Amino acid sequence: MKGNQYAVIGLGRFGSSLAKELVKLGYEVLGVDINEEAVEEMSQTLTHVVVADSTDEEVLKSLGVRNFDCAVVAIGDDIQSSILTAILLKDLGVKSVVAKALSDLHGKVLEKIGVDRIIFPERDMGIRVAHQLVSPNLLDYIDLSEKYTIAELAVPKRLTGCSLKEIDPRAKYGCSVVAINKKKGVIIAPTAVDTVEERDVMVVIGTREQIDQFEHAVIR
Amino acid sequence: MKGNQYAVIGLGRFGSSLAKELVKLGYEVLGVDINEEAVEEMSQTLTHVVVADSTDEEVLKSLGVRNFDCAVVAIGDDIQSSILTAILLKDLGVKSVVAKALSDLHGKVLEKIGVDRIIFPERDMGIRVAHQLVSPNLLDYIDLSEKYTIAELAVPKRLTGCSLKEIDPRAKYGCSVVAINKKKGVIIAPTAVDTVEERDVMVVIGTREQIDQFEHAVIR
Amino acid sequence: MKGNQYAVIGLGRFGSSLAKELVKLGYEVLGVDINEEAVEEMSQTLTHVVVADSTDEEVLKSLGVRNFDCAVVAIGDDIQSSILTAILLKDLGVKSVVAKALSDLHGKVLEKIGVDRIIFPERDMGIRVAHQLVSPNLLDYIDLSEKYTIAELAVPKRLTGCSLKEIDPRAKYGCSVVAINKKKGVIIAPTAVDTVEERDVMVVIGTREQIDQFEHAVIR
Amino acid sequence: MKGNQYAVIGLGRFGSSLAKELVKLGYEVLGVDINEEAVEEMSQTLTHVVVADSTDEEVLKSLGVRNFDCAVVAIGDDIQSSILTAILLKDLGVKSVVAKALSDLHGKVLEKIGVDRIIFPERDMGIRVAHQLVSPNLLDYIDLSEKYTIAELAVPKRLTGCSLKEIDPRAKYGCSVVAINKKKGVIIAPTAVDTVEERDVMVVIGTREQIDQFEHAVIR
Amino acid sequence: MKGNQYAVIGLGRFGSSLAKELVKLGYEVLGVDINEEAVEEMSQTLTHVVVADSTDEEVLKSLGVRNFDCAVVAIGDDIQSSILTAILLKDLGVKSVVAKALSDLHGKVLEKIGVDRIIFPERDMGIRVAHQLVSPNLLDYIDLSEKYTIAELAVPKRLTGCSLKEIDPRAKYGCSVVAINKKKGVIIAPTAVDTVEERDVMVVIGTREQIDQFEHAVIR
Amino acid sequence: MKGNQYAVIGLGRFGSSLAKELVKLGYEVLGVDINEEAVEEMSQTLTHVVVADSTDEEVLKSLGVRNFDCAVVAIGDDIQSSILTAILLKDLGVKSVVAKALSDLHGKVLEKIGVDRIIFPERDMGIRVAHQLVSPNLLDYIDLSEKYTIAELAVPKRLTGCSLKEIDPRAKYGCSVVAINKKKGVIIAPTAVDTVEERDVMVVIGTREQIDQFEHAVIR
Amino acid sequence: MKGNQYAVIGLGRFGSSLAKELVKLGYEVLGVDINEEAVEEMSQTLTHVVVADSTDEEVLKSLGVRNFDCAVVAIGDDIQSSILTAILLKDLGVKSVVAKALSDLHGKVLEKIGVDRIIFPERDMGIRVAHQLVSPNLLDYIDLSEKYTIAELAVPKRLTGCSLKEIDPRAKYGCSVVAINKKKGVIIAPTAVDTVEERDVMVVIGTREQIDQFEHAVIR
Amino acid sequence: MKGNQYAVIGLGRFGSSLAKELVKLGYEVLGVDINEEAVEEMSQTLTHVVVADSTDEEVLKSLGVRNFDCAVVAIGDDIQSSILTAILLKDLGVKSVVAKALSDLHGKVLEKIGVDRIIFPERDMGIRVAHQLVSPNLLDYIDLSEKYTIAELAVPKRLTGCSLKEIDPRAKYGCSVVAINKKKGVIIAPTAVDTVEERDVMVVIGTREQIDQFEHAVIR
Repeated sequence: MKGNQYAVIGLGRFGSSLAKELVKLGYEVLGVDINEEAVEEMSQTLTHVVVADSTDEEVLKSLGVRNFDCAVVAIGDDIQSSILTAILLKDLGVKSVVAKALSDLHGKVLEKIGVDRIIFPERDMGIRVAHQLVSPNLLDYIDLSEKYTIAELAVPKRLTGCSLKEIDPRAKYGCSVVAINKKKGVIIAPTAVDTVEERDVMVVIGTREQIDQFEHAVIR
Repeated sequence: MKGNQYAVIGLGRFGSSLAKELVKLGYEVLGVDINEEAVEEMSQTLTHVVVADSTDEEVLKSLGVRNFDCAVVAIGDDIQSSILTAILLKDLGVKSVVAKALSDLHGKVLEKIGVDRIIFPERDMGIRVAHQLVSPNLLDYIDLSEKYTIAELAVPKRLTGCSLKEIDPRAKYGCSVVAINKKKGVIIAPTAVDTVEERDVMVVIGTREQIDQFEHAVIR
Repeated sequence: MKGNQYAVIGLGRFGSSLAKELVKLGYEVLGVDINEEAVEEMSQTLTHVVVADSTDEEVLKSLGVRNFDCAVVAIGDDIQSSILTAILLKDLGVKSVVAKALSDLHGKVLEKIGVDRIIFPERDMGIRVAHQLVSPNLLDYIDLSEKYTIAELAVPKRLTGCSLKEIDPRAKYGCSVVAINKKKGVIIAPTAVDTVEERDVMVVIGTREQIDQFEHAVIR
Repeated sequence: MKGNQYAVIGLGRFGSSLAKELVKLGYEVLGVDINEEAVEEMSQTLTHVVVADSTDEEVLKSLGVRNFDCAVVAIGDDIQSSILTAILLKDLGVKSVVAKALSDLHGKVLEKIGVDRIIFPERDMGIRVAHQLVSPNLLDYIDLSEKYTIAELAVPKRLTGCSLKEIDPRAKYGCSVVAINKKKGVIIAPTAVDTVEERDVMVVIGTREQIDQFEHAVIR
Repeated sequence: MKGNQYAVIGLGRFGSSLAKELVKLGYEVLGVDINEEAVEEMSQTLTHVVVADSTDEEVLKSLGVRNFDCAVVAIGDDIQSSILTAILLKDLGVKSVVAKALSDLHGKVLEKIGVDRIIFPERDMGIRVAHQLVSPNLLDYIDLSEKYTIAELAVPKRLTGCSLKEIDPRAKYGCSVVAINKKKGVIIAPTAVDTVEERDVMVVIGTREQIDQFEHAVIR
Repeated sequence: MKGNQYAVIGLGRFGSSLAKELVKLGYEVLGVDINEEAVEEMSQTLTHVVVADSTDEEVLKSLGVRNFDCAVVAIGDDIQSSILTAILLKDLGVKSVVAKALSDLHGKVLEKIGVDRIIFPERDMGIRVAHQLVSPNLLDYIDLSEKYTIAELAVPKRLTGCSLKEIDPRAKYGCSVVAINKKKGVIIAPTAVDTVEERDVMVVIGTREQIDQFEHAVIR
Repeated sequence: MKGNQYAVIGLGRFGSSLAKELVKLGYEVLGVDINEEAVEEMSQTLTHVVVADSTDEEVLKSLGVRNFDCAVVAIGDDIQSSILTAILLKDLGVKSVVAKALSDLHGKVLEKIGVDRIIFPERDMGIRVAHQLVSPNLLDYIDLSEKYTIAELAVPKRLTGCSLKEIDPRAKYGCSVVAINKKKGVIIAPTAVDTVEERDVMVVIGTREQIDQFEHAVIR
Repeated sequence: MKGNQYAVIGLGRFGSSLAKELVKLGYEVLGVDINEEAVEEMSQTLTHVVVADSTDEEVLKSLGVRNFDCAVVAIGDDIQSSILTAILLKDLGVKSVVAKALSDLHGKVLEKIGVDRIIFPERDMGIRVAHQLVSPNLLDYIDLSEKYTIAELAVPKRLTGCSLKEIDPRAKYGCSVVAINKKKGVIIAPTAVDTVEERDVMVVIGTREQIDQFEHAVIR
């Protein structure tokens, strides 16, 4: 068991998924929700669970939340409870408070009251899925900067047997293949003679435009 | 304007974010919701919006959804409407139907009725945020396979001025730096003499374990 | 007690009537409903009853439904629960799953998720009653095919004492009397000299049109 | 268009199915419901539809219900409205009032206030389906009396090519085959040399017990 | 304690007043209501009280209502419960069932199902109060027939010391004073020399018109 | 049309019955209720009707209630509205304010705020019906004082043909027959030779006890 | 502990603040509310607390409220409960009943039923805050009469070191400085040579107009 | 009309009282509430009124609130709306934002998001009324500091005709009379020979303890 302890307040779909993953990664997690059913469902999975109203200072104190390294306010739809819980956690001296925001305005309030990190899960997931929809071979991606992106592109059947030299994304589109994920394993920094097959995945770095053109022209 | 057209049914936080991003990417988007307020809020942003009950076959027909390349069922909390809408869309012949699932069981039903792609936004976002919480310098990551990961790691102050040779993640931890995102731009396939500074971001490929050890030992 | 066991999920008017009849026919029946009152009302009648949420996989497992030969999803008005229960039952390996559908669309989803038999009680009963209304002497009927029907026709006072020869439906209307249900017993395959009386019931086979004309002209 | 006119009050699943079938059979039907949506859905199908509170005498008068030959009270779940509507219809002089009952007690009240015919659709359908479940080859049946039944039995593969002589239900089980429904048409009063094939349907008359034994021993 | 026993079902304002008065008159009263609070409030006053759903036959049987001489259905606002309770009571063989009706239509149903006496408390009280309002000195009255009435008229100050001879209602208005209620006691069949004083009350018999004119001209 | 005008506020069962009777008696009546449906139902019957919130001073002023001789607050179940309406009516200078009370406490408040007459319709009706139940031949009665009562008693079959001398209630029970209501008309101050028949009604004056004994011994 | 005892009925924001302050001032306080949560929150602070319906006479008696010197009806939003509680308290003989009114009409009813003192907290606080908003240096004030006021004015930086002679409000504006609240203490009846500094507060008596002009011209 | 303009958001009891007083004081006031009824009631009193959702940035912009000198957030019971409205007002650049807080925690959030002044009307009024209750002759008071207070004390009958010399609060209790409010007018800085009468009001400065003792010993 590692040293860090996390409190996750709000055990809806986002909160419970986050809490379960933290447990999987080897951390102790206290799950809190005002809804008894939501708590019961997590009782086998998390280290500790408790049915409690997190907007009540006495309750939070009695749970010892001040001793947690990090508390995540993952309250579903109740902006008021989210704000009041977050300010109490900061007041009680929790080192790091992370909170889910439902809207920009909610996010702004959370920022003003001192929340350390603000997350917009549905908004971010909406953006991510939009990109995947319009580029069917784009499996996933990370934006490095406003300009640069790393993308995972599925290799289409048509390119089976092609070497990177033949495909040559660098020369034609300006983006580089930094890894190829093949059944047998990952080739890091592949060379021009490495070939790809259907079901391989190329990891490409470049500007969003370069990768977009590459995906449309070559991969799709 | 590109050729593809998207229908997004359900304009909650996830659906409206997805729809907005599709418009930004240059596509025509029809937004549908049964809730008037949700529709009105999107009326300036999307190509077309309509207040409608998507579980009514006549309504869907009159909207001409069969002519859309892709329909996204992003209905918030109503599993019944999600399922009925999805089956109607498949029946009407929409080429690609993507749907958001609220639970594994919901996902299983969507699969059985022929939905082409099923998304669990809150669950996936919960997992992603859990990883970022436990590795504070992990900005973002993509899982290439069950074993391999690409991670974006923030360079801590302590490493300012160090060359990759000095840090040498490959020798010590087995993972490779495939890019460095610096203020001035991205260095792709950096060499051993390239140095990093605070605020730079290293893009590292390796197994989850290798990157985890590297992050804990060197980056944190 | 016969070998087969039935689980009936949903103890509304339809489900409880079905469950009671199965018990009458000598079978063991487990009755399940989420509503305590509905369950209590059946507790004296059925073999086993239980208050449970049938959309919860753990609950269904603990009830041992996988050992039942047949499960009937007779859930009243909640399409979502009906669908989720049905898919869970199929997943758990119940041999035969029968489900009540509230609408054509609901029926289509049930079909797609693998339900073995789908029933529309209110729709079917509406049709049956319509036929009885327009032909007051039509007591009941079975459609043999799209064309042929067997009908039970009440003999009116006016025909008392008439022989089948006198009535002669075959010659005049093309339909045959295959049985006469008299107070004393049923005459199967009656002959031309058999006579009818008020309160007797003739069982007639023919096309829908033939029987309709016969009923209008002779029986009414 | 035939002479008779029907008013159907209550356009739920049972009422709307009944009303639609009456229209199909060539009758004029007035559909009434207090719920606007239910009425709108039937507006294309029925001769006349109206949104109205059927417990208001003035309303019923203004609809001219007294001129209808038959009014069906198919009100869904509201026992009070069902009773008040039924008594008003009788008072207004409607010749024949048919009403759906939700329970035995409800049925008893309807009888006392003079309703001409009382229907229990869910109860009756529950019984019918129970019989079909326990005899998988029993397609449908009519109870002629407390003892005698006519049943439609699907011929199993195993009996393909057998003549009635070989099967001989009369000798062995006491029940008679009065018709065989074959693809090509119905054989009425079949003889001992007539043979059956898979997918044929035998129409059998006998006591419930005789047919039950025949079904278990031969047909299943 | 007298022999008769009464069951009062529904302990609202009317029912509880009636039940209390029956107890005061020396009878045993069982009070029943579905509402716990209403029952508790009467628990000190009535012989027996019970919280029960009177539309459930088993419940009524277990209360032994069939042994009561008279049951009063005083259910407040729920017409359905009133009707179902009344029919159950009649079926169980209660000798006399009295029920409160909320409307003419409700009253008509109660009559049809065999209720022995039907009461319209609010309607009757409204009529009674109307008469008292328009004749301020009319304290109370009984209608003997459609024409004749007995009225209690308060003697105004102005008439103090007058003899009946002076007032002479018989000669002038046609109505007779049959009693005078004085502080000291009631004078029955007063003579012409009997005098009245302020606060005395004259009991007058006559037609409604005669008394009305007498009240307007002399008493007011 | 007579001079007086009445405002009736609250058109429930009591209020509407009272208002209708006032109209029948020849007075102008303004009916007020906050509920549109209740108002509409009275619109054909009363002189004026209006949908209005009677707790709003401006509304009451605009209705001109100050010009009414008498206002009746017949508000059904809302004690607060009843009190606020009554105090406003008194403040606006209505000469006579009559109000219906739901409980003793409510009545006390109404008295304190100056209501001129307070009515308890359900309580009073409950008492009245109790008396009629225990004395089946007691048709109606008026309490003259705490001791004396006038009662209407139905003559039973058994007494047909008896003269008052034979019955002699005065000698035996101390109460006097002051009138006999016969089919042909009312006999006022009947003599000893007057006879009664079944269906006649005797009007008797006496103490409650005397009449009770007389009713039990002779009439019943 | 002083002799007086207070009952505070209604423990909302106003009632609980009042009750807490009374405890602070050394009095015994009984807190009553119908809402369990509200009562629990005060259980540590007040002498006694109880969850009770204050409109039930028996309840109030059992709490012994008649022995309290003063009862405060601080019921939040329920005018009916406020009125019924207040009249019960007066009836039970509580010496002094104070009640919070929600509106002028509510206040008028409370007055009529004999409440000794009526408070309009929100209205009064609204007025007070309005005055402070328009005169930013007006810290607080008391209205002595319709004309005269005592005001607390914050001394602005600009006047630091000025003597009252220099400022001279009496001569220029007609209002007198009766005290100066300085860090070191209060100077009562200051003389012309006393000086003020930033953060001092002058207590000024005069007409509302005089003080207003003085505040606008000198202080702001 | 003076220069300043105020926006009051939330027209409940506190907000509407504040807004009305601002109008009385000669300022322009815009009243905003999401509730139509509340707005209508103020439409005759305030300069402008509008029904609007103040948590919608576009709405606030279109109302031009950025041009107001001061906005008061007087929202009744909805903490979330209060917080979101306040942060929007600050963001839009309103110079001075004043907000009503419902609890300490709410107050803390308002402070963090930059609200300029926070008001607790019910809490403050509760404290003020508590002081008046325990000192019945204390009409009103201002706390100058934690120690010093100015109090308005009603002169009791008993002291009529007494001079300040006789009463001598300074010598006996240490507090000074700085003004006497008499019917004829206010005597500022009264001398030892000034006398008081019943109904006069003495304005006294001193420590809370001194005034308390003086009130208990002399005034009460």
